Amino acid sequence: MSDFILAFDFGGTKLSAAVIAAAEVTAGSRAWHQYERVFSPVSADAQYDIATMVNMGKQMLSGRRPAIVGVSFGGPVDYEAGMVRLSHHVPGWENAPLQAVLEAEFGVPVVVDNDANAAALGEYRFGAGQGVGSMMYITVSTGVGGGWVLNGRLWRGHEGMAGEIGHTVVDPLGPLCLCGKRGCVERLASGPYMAGDLESMRGQATGTLSGQQVAAAARAGDADAIQILDRGARALGVGIGNAANFVNPALFVLGGGVTKSGDRWWSNVRRAAAETALPEVRFDIRSASLNDDAPLWGAVALGLQRII
Amino acid sequence: MSDFILAFDFGGTKLSAAVIAAAEVTAGSRAWHQYERVFSPVSADAQYDIATMVNMGKQMLSGRRPAIVGVSFGGPVDYEAGMVRLSHHVPGWENAPLQAVLEAEFGVPVVVDNDANAAALGEYRFGAGQGVGSMMYITVSTGVGGGWVLNGRLWRGHEGMAGEIGHTVVDPLGPLCLCGKRGCVERLASGPYMAGDLESMRGQATGTLSGQQVAAAARAGDADAIQILDRGARALGVGIGNAANFVNPALFVLGGGVTKSGDRWWSNVRRAAAETALPEVRFDIRSASLNDDAPLWGAVALGLQRII
Repeated sequence: MSDFILAFDFGGTKLSAAVIAAAEVTAGSRAWHQYERVFSPVSADAQYDIATMVNMGKQMLSGRRPAIVGVSFGGPVDYEAGMVRLSHHVPGWENAPLQAVLEAEFGVPVVVDNDANAAALGEYRFGAGQGVGSMMYITVSTGVGGGWVLNGRLWRGHEGMAGEIGHTVVDPLGPLCLCGKRGCVERLASGPYMAGDLESMRGQATGTLSGQQVAAAARAGDADAIQILDRGARALGVGIGNAANFVNPALFVLGGGVTKSGDRWWSNVRRAAAETALPEVRFDIRSASLNDDAPLWGAVALGLQRII
Repeated sequence: MSDFILAFDFGGTKLSAAVIAAAEVTAGSRAWHQYERVFSPVSADAQYDIATMVNMGKQMLSGRRPAIVGVSFGGPVDYEAGMVRLSHHVPGWENAPLQAVLEAEFGVPVVVDNDANAAALGEYRFGAGQGVGSMMYITVSTGVGGGWVLNGRLWRGHEGMAGEIGHTVVDPLGPLCLCGKRGCVERLASGPYMAGDLESMRGQATGTLSGQQVAAAARAGDADAIQILDRGARALGVGIGNAANFVNPALFVLGGGVTKSGDRWWSNVRRAAAETALPEVRFDIRSASLNDDAPLWGAVALGLQRII
């Protein structure tokens, strides 16, 4: 039987594919046999992205048959059914049977999960979560999402919705989120919302400012930016502390662009999390170590779980 | 081998013991062979409670040897070590090796867990959670605590602290809790805190009012009592909605005295939970069905898990 895992990461704006040998990975190697990342054009739809990915995969395999295909998808996925529910970035993904399509293309089993779960599993198996029994991976970026690894396995929830820390409420009187609630973690801590709030404070709602620019302005001493970034970090920290009280994992791994906001951001997150959790509820908070490749490594881990 | 399970519930003010036949339970019977509940005097300490329980158990067994002893303890327990950490109600329980003591007394394996986990497992196996794959049990009483059943097994967390919904924060500007934080679910929704708040509003801080009396006053139309009870129900509902977003269980089972506060309380809890959870995050909220015996049935289930 073939020993190769073909890993795909449908990332919204980026499509990544890679091939790796299962036996080498389990022996400790982290070397891709092949690896490619391409940008998906703004005009792309689901069909385009799938065709691009299938072509990349087939070229990489050059006629060989993989043991399995592991897939991370940047949007909600029905894991049991192998169906994409939708994409918030790319049209045409509504109820797409991605697992069945790829099984027909490659003639081998395919396993599909969303990127938060994949990244959680990737960091657990190959990154910052190695050797830990239970952890939550949280991405703080355009949105705020998460995935759980409990007892060494992904916990997806009864309908695959577990990990939605972004829409837990930390301030019922806080600003209104698009989800309809006030004071969600995502409303306070995600890049675009922080940028929008800074624009509002400046009276210039152009929608062009980025979360990165908020962090840069805060570092340069801009009082408004500091206030917004601090508030976001504290909101995330309260969310993490609540998650710790609820589930008591050993570790939180934080990835995504907003986590590059500097030491002040990290210490605000850590302080609020520690203050929110009960004193007996202990945990570490670490930076993700696989960066943009976390979902791709997660796709490898999803495949690996099925064949060993 | 013996087929009997000896079940103990150290409940703080009440001590319960029961004997049941494992094969009959698994065949669907819910009939205790023996069952006894006694009050523990205010002067009792750990030694007294243990001696009382051992005597009850030995009388029930009348010389027979059980297959296993399952134990629910009303306070924090180190499950792996079989040690009680402490009791908030009865002195002398600090680091008591309850499992070892009972194994020496009965000469068979003993399994000990805290009452929130035991009640969760009891409701899952024999009560309101039957047939559900994942649930959270929440007791709303003197305190607010909880336990998780995920994939049909207790999820205790990496240091046994999972389920602490009572000290998740739902209102960072809310009233101060003894735990040092503001706006914890327990601070807003538990019986004694609601009673204290009503006394404060009335300008009569006697400490004699009970949560039950708050509910009775609310039913009688007392505007202050209604306000406090509504606020508590909403706080619990936000906590449940947050738990649902984090973990996505199929069901929440609510027990404890405060859940007897009437329809208005239940609909406030349900509304706040539904508003807090994302629309895709679905769950049921049900009343516990085993009442005061949930921990004892949980002790049976803890034993049963080990012998079948």
